[in-house]
Amino acid sequence: MTTPNPPTSSPHLKVSFPHEYIAHVEISRPTKLNAFISPMWSALPPLFSHLSTDPSIRCIILSGTGSRAFTSGLDVTAASSPDSVFALANPDSSSVDPARKSSLLLRHITDIQACITAIAKCGKPVIAAVHGLCWGLGVDLITACDVRFASPGASFCVKEIDIGLAADVGTLSRLPKCVGSASWVKDVCLSARVFGAEEALQQGLVSRVSKGEGGGGAEDQKGAVVEMAMEWARGVVEKSPVAVQGTKELLDWGWDRGVEEGLRYTAVWNAGMLQTRDVREAMTAGMEKRKARFEKL
Amino acid sequence: MTTPNPPTSSPHLKVSFPHEYIAHVEISRPTKLNAFISPMWSALPPLFSHLSTDPSIRCIILSGTGSRAFTSGLDVTAASSPDSVFALANPDSSSVDPARKSSLLLRHITDIQACITAIAKCGKPVIAAVHGLCWGLGVDLITACDVRFASPGASFCVKEIDIGLAADVGTLSRLPKCVGSASWVKDVCLSARVFGAEEALQQGLVSRVSKGEGGGGAEDQKGAVVEMAMEWARGVVEKSPVAVQGTKELLDWGWDRGVEEGLRYTAVWNAGMLQTRDVREAMTAGMEKRKARFEKL
Amino acid sequence: MTTPNPPTSSPHLKVSFPHEYIAHVEISRPTKLNAFISPMWSALPPLFSHLSTDPSIRCIILSGTGSRAFTSGLDVTAASSPDSVFALANPDSSSVDPARKSSLLLRHITDIQACITAIAKCGKPVIAAVHGLCWGLGVDLITACDVRFASPGASFCVKEIDIGLAADVGTLSRLPKCVGSASWVKDVCLSARVFGAEEALQQGLVSRVSKGEGGGGAEDQKGAVVEMAMEWARGVVEKSPVAVQGTKELLDWGWDRGVEEGLRYTAVWNAGMLQTRDVREAMTAGMEKRKARFEKL
Amino acid sequence: MTTPNPPTSSPHLKVSFPHEYIAHVEISRPTKLNAFISPMWSALPPLFSHLSTDPSIRCIILSGTGSRAFTSGLDVTAASSPDSVFALANPDSSSVDPARKSSLLLRHITDIQACITAIAKCGKPVIAAVHGLCWGLGVDLITACDVRFASPGASFCVKEIDIGLAADVGTLSRLPKCVGSASWVKDVCLSARVFGAEEALQQGLVSRVSKGEGGGGAEDQKGAVVEMAMEWARGVVEKSPVAVQGTKELLDWGWDRGVEEGLRYTAVWNAGMLQTRDVREAMTAGMEKRKARFEKL
Amino acid sequence: MTTPNPPTSSPHLKVSFPHEYIAHVEISRPTKLNAFISPMWSALPPLFSHLSTDPSIRCIILSGTGSRAFTSGLDVTAASSPDSVFALANPDSSSVDPARKSSLLLRHITDIQACITAIAKCGKPVIAAVHGLCWGLGVDLITACDVRFASPGASFCVKEIDIGLAADVGTLSRLPKCVGSASWVKDVCLSARVFGAEEALQQGLVSRVSKGEGGGGAEDQKGAVVEMAMEWARGVVEKSPVAVQGTKELLDWGWDRGVEEGLRYTAVWNAGMLQTRDVREAMTAGMEKRKARFEKL
Amino acid sequence: MTTPNPPTSSPHLKVSFPHEYIAHVEISRPTKLNAFISPMWSALPPLFSHLSTDPSIRCIILSGTGSRAFTSGLDVTAASSPDSVFALANPDSSSVDPARKSSLLLRHITDIQACITAIAKCGKPVIAAVHGLCWGLGVDLITACDVRFASPGASFCVKEIDIGLAADVGTLSRLPKCVGSASWVKDVCLSARVFGAEEALQQGLVSRVSKGEGGGGAEDQKGAVVEMAMEWARGVVEKSPVAVQGTKELLDWGWDRGVEEGLRYTAVWNAGMLQTRDVREAMTAGMEKRKARFEKL
Repeated sequence: MTTPNPPTSSPHLKVSFPHEYIAHVEISRPTKLNAFISPMWSALPPLFSHLSTDPSIRCIILSGTGSRAFTSGLDVTAASSPDSVFALANPDSSSVDPARKSSLLLRHITDIQACITAIAKCGKPVIAAVHGLCWGLGVDLITACDVRFASPGASFCVKEIDIGLAADVGTLSRLPKCVGSASWVKDVCLSARVFGAEEALQQGLVSRVSKGEGGGGAEDQKGAVVEMAMEWARGVVEKSPVAVQGTKELLDWGWDRGVEEGLRYTAVWNAGMLQTRDVREAMTAGMEKRKARFEKL
Repeated sequence: MTTPNPPTSSPHLKVSFPHEYIAHVEISRPTKLNAFISPMWSALPPLFSHLSTDPSIRCIILSGTGSRAFTSGLDVTAASSPDSVFALANPDSSSVDPARKSSLLLRHITDIQACITAIAKCGKPVIAAVHGLCWGLGVDLITACDVRFASPGASFCVKEIDIGLAADVGTLSRLPKCVGSASWVKDVCLSARVFGAEEALQQGLVSRVSKGEGGGGAEDQKGAVVEMAMEWARGVVEKSPVAVQGTKELLDWGWDRGVEEGLRYTAVWNAGMLQTRDVREAMTAGMEKRKARFEKL
Repeated sequence: MTTPNPPTSSPHLKVSFPHEYIAHVEISRPTKLNAFISPMWSALPPLFSHLSTDPSIRCIILSGTGSRAFTSGLDVTAASSPDSVFALANPDSSSVDPARKSSLLLRHITDIQACITAIAKCGKPVIAAVHGLCWGLGVDLITACDVRFASPGASFCVKEIDIGLAADVGTLSRLPKCVGSASWVKDVCLSARVFGAEEALQQGLVSRVSKGEGGGGAEDQKGAVVEMAMEWARGVVEKSPVAVQGTKELLDWGWDRGVEEGLRYTAVWNAGMLQTRDVREAMTAGMEKRKARFEKL
Repeated sequence: MTTPNPPTSSPHLKVSFPHEYIAHVEISRPTKLNAFISPMWSALPPLFSHLSTDPSIRCIILSGTGSRAFTSGLDVTAASSPDSVFALANPDSSSVDPARKSSLLLRHITDIQACITAIAKCGKPVIAAVHGLCWGLGVDLITACDVRFASPGASFCVKEIDIGLAADVGTLSRLPKCVGSASWVKDVCLSARVFGAEEALQQGLVSRVSKGEGGGGAEDQKGAVVEMAMEWARGVVEKSPVAVQGTKELLDWGWDRGVEEGLRYTAVWNAGMLQTRDVREAMTAGMEKRKARFEKL
Repeated sequence: MTTPNPPTSSPHLKVSFPHEYIAHVEISRPTKLNAFISPMWSALPPLFSHLSTDPSIRCIILSGTGSRAFTSGLDVTAASSPDSVFALANPDSSSVDPARKSSLLLRHITDIQACITAIAKCGKPVIAAVHGLCWGLGVDLITACDVRFASPGASFCVKEIDIGLAADVGTLSRLPKCVGSASWVKDVCLSARVFGAEEALQQGLVSRVSKGEGGGGAEDQKGAVVEMAMEWARGVVEKSPVAVQGTKELLDWGWDRGVEEGLRYTAVWNAGMLQTRDVREAMTAGMEKRKARFEKL
Repeated sequence: MTTPNPPTSSPHLKVSFPHEYIAHVEISRPTKLNAFISPMWSALPPLFSHLSTDPSIRCIILSGTGSRAFTSGLDVTAASSPDSVFALANPDSSSVDPARKSSLLLRHITDIQACITAIAKCGKPVIAAVHGLCWGLGVDLITACDVRFASPGASFCVKEIDIGLAADVGTLSRLPKCVGSASWVKDVCLSARVFGAEEALQQGLVSRVSKGEGGGGAEDQKGAVVEMAMEWARGVVEKSPVAVQGTKELLDWGWDRGVEEGLRYTAVWNAGMLQTRDVREAMTAGMEKRKARFEKL
C-alpha cells in the first residue's frame, strides 16, 4: 500500500521538487517537441500512482520540457512503424480476421486510456501549465488534469481527426465536461482547427493565461506560466491536505452524477473526514493570524 | 397538504411581499454580517415548503439584510462552541469510537444538506440577489437558487477549505452544474480565493451584474441588484404559473439526466399540464394585445 | 437499409447541394417567417434519415429560406385551429376525461419530439446557420444540431412560456447541455426574453458570429453566416468520414454519461473503426503534403 | 397519429381477434417451423405500432402458427445467402475496409433491434404463449413481451453462440432483467443448451406452464397454452385501460431505474391519469357487484 | 438531531418493545381489517424517523393488529368521500382546470409516497411479518421493508388496478427490485389476482413461511410468523450495530446502482466504519466463545 | 500487451491445464481450510489478467485445494495481527487522527476490492466449483465469477457481520445482482446464517448442484462438482471464442444498465465482432455435422 521510495524520474518524465510538497513533472523528449511514444504513456501510471499516495506530495505541476511544446501529441512517425497499433489496425496488414483484430485493438486502446486516466485518478490536485504546442494527445492529457493554466502563446488542437480517427484516449469523453459550449466542442473536434490561449480561456478550457505577450519569447512565456502554476500550488499545499484531497474527490464524483448522488456521497465522505485535527488547527490559526501547520497525508 | 396561513418571518429570515405574487426573503443577522447559526438553516425548510405551495406566491427573491453582506457564511465562533458539530467531530473530544461518531456526523450533515436543498426543491423560481459578501455557506445557498444576479461589489469565496474541510452542504455537488469551466471550479474550490462579480458573470455563476459601480455605496448597490431581481420577478409572475412551474421542474429534472430521459419526462409532464385554460388565455391575450390573467396555482 | 434515391425537397424543406458532400436544408415557408406547421416537422425524419445514411453526403447545413427568419417558431394561428393539439388539450373542448386526453397528448408530444430528434440522430454533422428570428421551435431545432453559427442580427427567444406552456419538444432537455451557465438558462427560459447573437456567443449557445454588422442588410447577413457555415462544412467534408462520424457519435454518447462510460464505449467503437484505410491515407497525404482522398461512407 | 384502419395481417404475421379487445398475433411460416426471414421482423413495427394506439385493442397474445414451434429462430439457410448481413460481415467477402463494414453492420443491427423493440414499446400488454421450439430469435422475441406462459413441451435455447456470434437483438440485454439468477443466465447463454418449460418456470422466465403433459400431443399443448393466455387476457381487458396501460408503463420505466426515479415518474404520471372516470366507475361497480364498463383508450 | 423521548404509539400504529433493542409496530385498525386512512400513513414518518435514530432500537418488526389482516389496503369507503384525493381527481368534480388539478395531485401523491418511503429510509432493519390479508397498500408497505416473512395463510394482492388506477405509492417501483421474475411481476400487477404465501415464497417476495398450516387457526398462524420474525430479530440485535446498519445501507445503495458504484461507496463507508471497537470485541468474543457486547448506536 | 509466458502458479493459487483451452485455478492453503491471507488476494490480478489475454485459454475453473473448503474466508488470526488493516482501524491503536486513518483504510479497501474484481474483469468465462466451506471472502469471490456450481455438501455464509463489519470487498455490491429475492439477500447478509447448496440453488446463487449426496464423502463430492464444471467448460471451449467472449462482455455490460444502453453497446460491439470467419465456420460445420474449429483469441 505504501510507496516508500521517492518517485524517480523516468527517461521521458522528469520529476523535480521545486518546493515543499510540490512535484513538478515534465514531459521530456525535447528533440521531438515532447511527442509521445509508447514508453512515455506507460510511465504515467507508476509515477502518478506513487505521487497519489506519497504523503510528502500535496500538489503536482505538469508541463513540457523546453519551451516550444507542452507536447506536440502522438509521434506520428513512430505510430507509422510496422509494430505500432496502427499497423495492426491496417486492414491490409494480415490475415487475422477483423473481429480478432478488434479484440486486440480493444485491449490496446483500453491500456492507453488507463495510462492517461492515471492522472485523473491521482488523489492530489494536478495542474497543467500549458506552453507552446498542446496538440492531440496533449489535449487528452490536460483534460485529465484538475486545473489548466496557459501561456499567451500556447496553441491547442484536437488533432486526431486529421489522421483519420476519432480521438479515443480521453478528449472526446472529458472535453465536454471541461467547458460549457457544446457547439464549440464540436467545432474544434470536427474541424481540428488550432486555437490559442485566449480562446481557450474564453471557453473555459483553461482558467488563467499568464502575462507577457509583448516582448517575451517562448522561454519567458513558459517560465511565466510555470511560475503562475507554482504560485497556485504553493497556496494549495498550505491548506489542510484532508480538505484539499476531499475537495478534489468530491468534485470528481459529482461531475458525472446528479446532485442527490453527490450530496449523499459527500455526507458519507465527510462523516469520516471531519474527524481531523486540521479543523481545529485551521480555526485556531485563523484566529491567531498565524499560518496553520497540518500533518502529512 | 395546503398551507393556509401566510408565511411568517422567523427571527433570521425576514419575509416581505413587495409586489403581488412576489415574496422577498432576507437573511437577517445584520450585526454578524448575516453569518449562519444553526436556527437559521433550520428555518429554511418550513419557509420554502410554504412558499412552494402557497398559490399567492409565484416567485421568490433571496437577499441579505443590510448592504454589507448577502451572508459571510458559517458563524465560525458559534461553530467552535463545545456543542457544535465540529466539537463532536474533534478526534480528541470523547471516547466514542470514530465509527459511531461517523454515524452521528452523517445524520448532522444530511440534516443540514436537507435544509439547503429545501430552496432547490421549492416549486417556484428563486432568484438570489447577491450583494457584499457571499462566502462559504453563501455559495451553498445561491447554487441552490434558480437564477443569480449580483451587485458589482459582490464578493464570492468557496471558503470551506480554509477551515480544514471539504464543502459538504451543496457547493461541491451543485457548482459544477452551474458553470461551464471545470478548471475554474477546481481553481476556486481548491484555493478558496475571493472573486468578484465580474468574474462570476464571466464564468456564468451569475447571469447579470447590476449597474452603479461608480459613486454608489454598498447601500445603493444592494438597492440596484434587488431592484434588478424585482424587475425580473415582476416579469415572471405575469406569465402562466402552470408554464413557469413546469419550466423550472423540467429544467431541474433534465439537468442531472440524459436527453432521452429529459424528453420522456417532459412529455409525460405536459400530457397533463397542457390541459390548462392558460394556453388559450395566453394566446388570446397575445392576439388582443392585452395582459393575460391566470388563475392561481 | 440503403436509401438509393437522392433526397428530394419537400414543400417546406428545400434541399440543395452547393458543394460535393454538402447538403443545404432550408426551412421554407417564407411568407410566414418560416413558421412551423405540422407537415414541416413531419418532413424532418425521412429527410434526415436519408441524409444520415447517404454516402454522398458528409455534412449538412440548416438555415431558413429568405433572410428575415431562421424560423419564427410554431405557427400560432395554425396552433389555434380546432383540430390542433392545443384544441385537444383545451379543458373545455370535449367530454373525454383528462386521463384519456393525457394519453392522446402523450402520443402527440412524443411524435413531435421524435421529429426534432431526427436531426440529433443524423450520423453526419449538422450545422445551424442562424439568421433573423430564431424563436420558440427554432431553439428546439438548433439545440438538436451539432454546431451553431449566427449572423450578428440574429434574434433568439425561448418563447413557449409566453403561450402558457413549458417548452416540450427539446429546448428544456437540450439547452442545459449546450451552454455552461445554469443561471442564464433559467433566466432566458423563465422570462422568454429576446437575446441577440452576441449574448448567444458569450454564453456559448453559438460558437461563432459572422461579420457584417455595419451596413449590411438582413440579406447580406444571411449570406455571410451561410458562407461561414459552408466554409466550415467544406473543411469537414475533406476529413475522413470514418473519423468525422465517429467523433460526432462519441461526443454525443459521452455528453449524457460519465467519463468511464464514455471511455469504454469509445474503445469498443474504435476497435472496429481503426480498421480503415483512411488512417494510412491521412498519414501518407500529410507527409506528402497533398490532399487526402477518402472512400465514401 | 391515429391509425384508422384495422390492423391487417401480413404474410407472416397473422392477426385475429378472438375476443373483444384482444388481438392474437401468430408468427406464421409453418413449413419452416416459423423460422424468421427479414420481411418477418420488418413487419413487427407497423403491426405493433398500430396495436399500441388502436383503442379497440387492450391486450395482445403472441404465439406461433401450427403446434411444433413458436419459432425455431433465424432461418439459417436464408442467413447464409449472398445478400444477407452475414455475407456482408464475412471478412473475405469484399474489399470494403472493416471500418466501413462496421458502419453498415451497425445500421443493420440497429434496424433489427428496433423491430424487436417495437413489441416492448407497445402500450398494451403483450403475452407470449410459447409452445414447441422457441430458439434463438424466439428468446429475443419473448423477452420483449410483458408476460410469458409456456406449454409443458416447450423448448428454449439461446442459440446464437452456436453460429459464432453473441446474441445482439435483445436477449443479452433483456434476459438478465427477466429472471433472477445471474449464474443461470450465463450458463444458458454461454452453453446454448436447450432447456424446457419446467426449468423456464423455476427460473422465472415464464410465469406459468399449462397442463396436459400426459397424453396430449403438441396440438393439444398449444391449444392449452393459448387458452391459458386467452383467459389471462380476458381478465385484463375487463380492467380500466387507463390503469392497465399505466401499470405497464410504470413497471417498464422502473425496471431500468432506481426506486426514487421510479417514484417520481409514477407521481407525475398519475397526476394526470387519476383524472379519469374509470376510478369512480370501478369503485361503484365494485360496490354494486356488477362488471365495470370503461371507455376505450 | 437526537430524539430523546421514547417513541409513543399513535392511534393506529401500536408500538411495543418485546425484547431489548426490538420494537414491534402493529398496524392497528382491527375493526376494519387494518384498512388505511390518511392519518395512518401520516403517522409513519415521525415514528420511523424516531426508530431510525433511537440508539435503544436495533431492529423493527412490522405486523398487523389482530390475526385476520396485515392490512386489507386502502380504505375504499374513506377514499370515496368528498374530500378525498379521488374526489379531487374526479373529472366532473369542479371547474379547476386539469393542469391545476395535476399540480395538486402531484403534491398529494408525493406526500403519500414519502410516508411509505419513511420505512425504507429507516436506518435499522425492518422485518414484515405478514399474516392474513396483505392487499393493495399492504404490498406497498412490505416492499419498503427489508425482510419479509409470511404465515402459510397469508394472502397477497396488487389490488390497485381493480379500482381503476396504477399503483403509485411504491409497489410498481419496488416490487421488480424485490423478486426475480419479470413475467410474474407483470402477471400479478396487471391481473390483480390474489396469491398465497407459497407462491410469494417461490417467487422470492417473502423469504420464509412459518409452520402450522394444519390445525392452526389464523390466531396461531399470526403468532407463529411474528415469533419467526422475533427470532430473526433477536439474532440481529446481538450483532454489532455498526455492522448491521452498514450492511443495510450498503445493500440499499447498491440495489439501484452498478457494481462499480456500489464498491466505491462501500469503500468510503467502511473507511470510517471500520474504526470501531466492535471489530475487536467481535473477534475476541468469538475466540473466547462468549457473547459479544456492543455499545449503542 | 501480450503475455507470452504461460501462467505460473503462485504459492497459494495452483494453476493446471486439465484440458485444451481450460485452466483450473485452485485456492491453495489446505492446512488452513484455504483461508485467505494478503498474498493470496494480491496474486489474483496478475494471474487473471494473464488468463484474460492468453489465447490458449478459453475458460477457467475456480475451486479450492482439498475437499473440505472452497475457502473458509479471511484468516481471522492473521487479520488480528498488529500489522493488519484491522489493527490500523482500531480506534485505540495510534494517535493518527481518524480522518487520516480513513484515507489509509480507503486505499486498503480499494486495493483489495480491485484484487477480487480482477476475476470479474477476466475476459473469459470463470466458473466457480464450490465444495465444502464457502464463507465470508468465499462469497465475495464466487459472486465475481460468471457461473456457480456447488456440491451437495457445500456450505455458504456471508460471515462479515459476525466480526463487526459490513462486507466490503464485493458481496454487498454483487450478491443482489446474482439472485432475485431481495428479502433473502437481506436475510442472509444481516443474520450471517449458514445455508447449504439446496438453498443456494433454489435462490439462484448457484445454478446447478452436483450429484452424490448419498454415500459420497467430501472427496467424492468435490470431484463431482469439479467434473461438472469441467464438462460445462469443455462445451464452452468448443464454441467460437469471439462469440463466447462477446456474450460474457455484453451480459456484464447490460447487467448494470438499462435495456436501451445494452442494445446500443451490443450493436456497436457486434458491428466489429461479426466480421469473423467463425460465423461461416460454425454454420458450415453445423450443416456438415462436424465439429467446428476456431482460431485462437
